[in-house]
Amino acid sequence: MPRITAQEVYALCDESLPWAGMMGFEIIDIGKGSCRVRMPQKAEFLRPGGTINGPALMSLADYGMYVAVLSRIGRVEMAVTTSLNCNFLRRPKPGAVIAHCRLIKLGRRLAYGEVSLYSEGDEDAGPVAHVTATYSIPPERGES
Amino acid sequence: MPRITAQEVYALCDESLPWAGMMGFEIIDIGKGSCRVRMPQKAEFLRPGGTINGPALMSLADYGMYVAVLSRIGRVEMAVTTSLNCNFLRRPKPGAVIAHCRLIKLGRRLAYGEVSLYSEGDEDAGPVAHVTATYSIPPERGES
Amino acid sequence: MPRITAQEVYALCDESLPWAGMMGFEIIDIGKGSCRVRMPQKAEFLRPGGTINGPALMSLADYGMYVAVLSRIGRVEMAVTTSLNCNFLRRPKPGAVIAHCRLIKLGRRLAYGEVSLYSEGDEDAGPVAHVTATYSIPPERGES
Amino acid sequence: MPRITAQEVYALCDESLPWAGMMGFEIIDIGKGSCRVRMPQKAEFLRPGGTINGPALMSLADYGMYVAVLSRIGRVEMAVTTSLNCNFLRRPKPGAVIAHCRLIKLGRRLAYGEVSLYSEGDEDAGPVAHVTATYSIPPERGES
Repeated sequence: MPRITAQEVYALCDESLPWAGMMGFEIIDIGKGSCRVRMPQKAEFLRPGGTINGPALMSLADYGMYVAVLSRIGRVEMAVTTSLNCNFLRRPKPGAVIAHCRLIKLGRRLAYGEVSLYSEGDEDAGPVAHVTATYSIPPERGES
Repeated sequence: MPRITAQEVYALCDESLPWAGMMGFEIIDIGKGSCRVRMPQKAEFLRPGGTINGPALMSLADYGMYVAVLSRIGRVEMAVTTSLNCNFLRRPKPGAVIAHCRLIKLGRRLAYGEVSLYSEGDEDAGPVAHVTATYSIPPERGES
Repeated sequence: MPRITAQEVYALCDESLPWAGMMGFEIIDIGKGSCRVRMPQKAEFLRPGGTINGPALMSLADYGMYVAVLSRIGRVEMAVTTSLNCNFLRRPKPGAVIAHCRLIKLGRRLAYGEVSLYSEGDEDAGPVAHVTATYSIPPERGES
Repeated sequence: MPRITAQEVYALCDESLPWAGMMGFEIIDIGKGSCRVRMPQKAEFLRPGGTINGPALMSLADYGMYVAVLSRIGRVEMAVTTSLNCNFLRRPKPGAVIAHCRLIKLGRRLAYGEVSLYSEGDEDAGPVAHVTATYSIPPERGES
């Protein structure tokens, strides 16, 4: 069982991560150490040619990793990203973006995972971006 | 001499990068293959404890790299980020963030550079984040 | 069907990648865009406490990515790594290391993939390191 | 004043990092939080066309970061790399490689720095590779 629900994440973000609301991020589902999140199309994310800008994709990946971490350690406001590495692989289509997030390691102090981002409805074309990220977590909440 | 001015970057972003305007990014100065850019404080970028969220910092770094690339190749809308790696080094203070951007290599097809981000007025404390990024550029505009 | 066999990789490395032989790298199996490779234990790779040093792990990952690329494009000496990002996740045990390699994207000019490295016989503990890497490939050999 | 000398690093590596000796790494100079290290030409590092293979470059960068960390915290065997990100920027010439290493942050638990690698005698052509890396250090030895 995940240790946090979508409703609890939304409530936490309302309080402490207004960015997530501004971006319109939605949670599709939460597993234990994994989740899928969604960014709806917004005009201000577009670049010339109709593609979605890179920072919006990285922002969605960062949010997804945060949700995946919370799915294992429960509600902890102070989990923070310590590094994020993004590779942009193909031009996203205009439209929503779906991120598949998965923890690879949850340690006592650090969590590490990966995120594959897809243009919604075009998943078969392969990911538009791939992200790895490291989170620092309060030591009493992690696992050894 | 840089091959683009701040006014030309602003005009280009008005047309094709509305994100930059929404974030309030400003250009402090442009060199040849370098620049300094600034992100003003905005409530929606804040995280618990008053710190600035990671995606806002990565977005500023990505913008600064774009400006640094344009400073060498001139106005080219289609330069796109192919990878971005960010390390978050210390908690930013509430307030504006300054990014010092520098190209390390400009090739025929790829540009690569680094960005050091500082809390404005607290530069002596060292960077709050350090970014390296790769840009893909139209081949006829790069250098061999 | 993979477009190269283990024997063909060994022959190619004998000619042009003496490093791989010096390290004792072995190929367990090759799929289409994937492979598993193995590094035997060697005294010179050890660090204090019996753990394996980071460069040896990165070297194995780089080799595995090369094999995974060749499995799709066939024998091409001039494929070269353009970036490699390694996260060390837990202390390897003394002994052999197994790398599971998988291409995420094969484009016309670039291949991108990931590698998970495990201590042989201790795979259930999770990966000791996770690598993402980008390869540049001769344009006529990639796929659009 | 650096907190370790070249002779002390060599002695430490003889005991606990045989890899460094096998690679023939040399220390050119050590500052406080910086150093320059050198890898001599070796036939087994070469790739087709006479270029130097990527793992050898990453290995030199990792060694240089280790020396830069020790220059601030003194002799500590247990400092270990937690992440390393390498971008290969141009084809190295056959011959020795010089790495310029610099700590960007030394915290209580993590050190972070960058390394620029050059073909010896061809520094004006720009770096052949650029590395950023994170080291985990025993908490009692770092700085807050």
